[in-house]
Amino acid sequence: MPALFHKMVVAGVGLIGASLALAARERGLVEEIVGYGRSEKNLRFARDKKMIDSYFSQPWEIPEDTDFLVLGTPVQATVPLMEDFMGRLRTGCIISDVGSVKAEIVRGMEKLLPPTLPFVGAHPIAGGEQWGAEPARADLFIGQRCILTPTKKTDPAALEKVSTLWKKVGAKVEELDADTHDKILGLVSHLPHVLVYGLVNFMNRARVNSTEVIEYCGGGFKDFTRIASSRPELWRDICLLNREAVSGGLADYIKELEKLKRLVDEGKGPELEREFALANEARRRLS
Amino acid sequence: MPALFHKMVVAGVGLIGASLALAARERGLVEEIVGYGRSEKNLRFARDKKMIDSYFSQPWEIPEDTDFLVLGTPVQATVPLMEDFMGRLRTGCIISDVGSVKAEIVRGMEKLLPPTLPFVGAHPIAGGEQWGAEPARADLFIGQRCILTPTKKTDPAALEKVSTLWKKVGAKVEELDADTHDKILGLVSHLPHVLVYGLVNFMNRARVNSTEVIEYCGGGFKDFTRIASSRPELWRDICLLNREAVSGGLADYIKELEKLKRLVDEGKGPELEREFALANEARRRLS
Repeated sequence: MPALFHKMVVAGVGLIGASLALAARERGLVEEIVGYGRSEKNLRFARDKKMIDSYFSQPWEIPEDTDFLVLGTPVQATVPLMEDFMGRLRTGCIISDVGSVKAEIVRGMEKLLPPTLPFVGAHPIAGGEQWGAEPARADLFIGQRCILTPTKKTDPAALEKVSTLWKKVGAKVEELDADTHDKILGLVSHLPHVLVYGLVNFMNRARVNSTEVIEYCGGGFKDFTRIASSRPELWRDICLLNREAVSGGLADYIKELEKLKRLVDEGKGPELEREFALANEARRRLS
Repeated sequence: MPALFHKMVVAGVGLIGASLALAARERGLVEEIVGYGRSEKNLRFARDKKMIDSYFSQPWEIPEDTDFLVLGTPVQATVPLMEDFMGRLRTGCIISDVGSVKAEIVRGMEKLLPPTLPFVGAHPIAGGEQWGAEPARADLFIGQRCILTPTKKTDPAALEKVSTLWKKVGAKVEELDADTHDKILGLVSHLPHVLVYGLVNFMNRARVNSTEVIEYCGGGFKDFTRIASSRPELWRDICLLNREAVSGGLADYIKELEKLKRLVDEGKGPELEREFALANEARRRLS
């Protein structure tokens, strides 16, 4: 099979962008990979490790013969960066992204881009607390979901090619509309980050008599709060870009906690056990 | 060094009780170990694996020459079971427990027991989601905290012996008064269990359009909610026995979430990032 793309530009050579570069290269899906980013140190690292063939540091240096541009920047930066790139790109260059929030990005891109530069929104659900090119690996997407968020305006051929790319690097590709994506991810991913950041702060501030409670947070707590190691500025952006879903999730979860608090306060043993048992069962089904 | 105890009875041969049996035997701290419990299958397993030498199934069968009794039952069962045992025990038998909630147990035991049966409250902070003798291991307590909760009434010699036992099996022994213990553990351990049980139920019930949101809960969520695999009835008991601390923690954590929700709703990026960055830093200090 010939390569899917001639020249892929990865703008933002972070964990996701660099892993996609590695995986696409390994599967022979692209002929050439060019990186863009703000940290030259990171770009040099990625080039030295042969994740990318070369890199550029100014948006106007984007190669004119780019036929696939993946935006792997923080979500707030995606549309503004595209504005900087677009003047140089030729008809037919497919644009995609990997952002955790989709509705705002899809709307912004569709408003910005001419039909000659087809856009396909994508969110590979992979990664973790690490960042930069260093932790990248070619097998990051194997068995993971990649959600594409096409609209009525999406070019079917571009959608097909982006879908093929993600399938070839091992992802389970599915399609959702961007709003549904954001509501779901707002609950399963963005909300837990807020809860854990909040919990760590809560513990960090808590005192019993004069004892710092966090001194007693052991291994379980560390596992449990691992996601608080994620980059604050990324999650600030995600929360603000997906404000409605995150806020709604917080409101509903607070109600859930108020219900449990009532059961504790009123000493309702059987009801409390029933809630815990339901959660226990649901958690087992996940395993 | 001669053994610390001649005959140790472990009442409740669960993860903690059986691990203490293994560790105490390995270090030569006890001459003989007898198990008590409600599941004969579990007791037989523990005996076959030489965790215990023998077992009994009716409280009145407790050996009269027991000189160390460790209660490793669920917290609500500790004092009632002691009532069943006490008629048979001879002067000087040291009683201890391993419960996650201390104030109620310490009060109950001191009310129940005569001075001839000295009690020392203990809480080795170890274990996890598993239960029964099967996952027990001799090294479970190495490097873990074991909190003793003596009172003015506690016999100093008994305290010394129990302290020595826990140190010899590798635990970092410290003393707290029972109320302080409960307030701290209520926050660092009991509260997170309630939060995670609640979060799993919340996700399990959430729908976006007709999609079950929990279908999208991936590996991160599984790690994060591992503690929801803990036994519901144990945590119901712990929450009810430590009601005030758990309820107070819930109230304060809800306030923390309401603050974060306000920042999200009002789009306060810098303040939100500041909160996330504080948590990020505090979490790093834990590692």
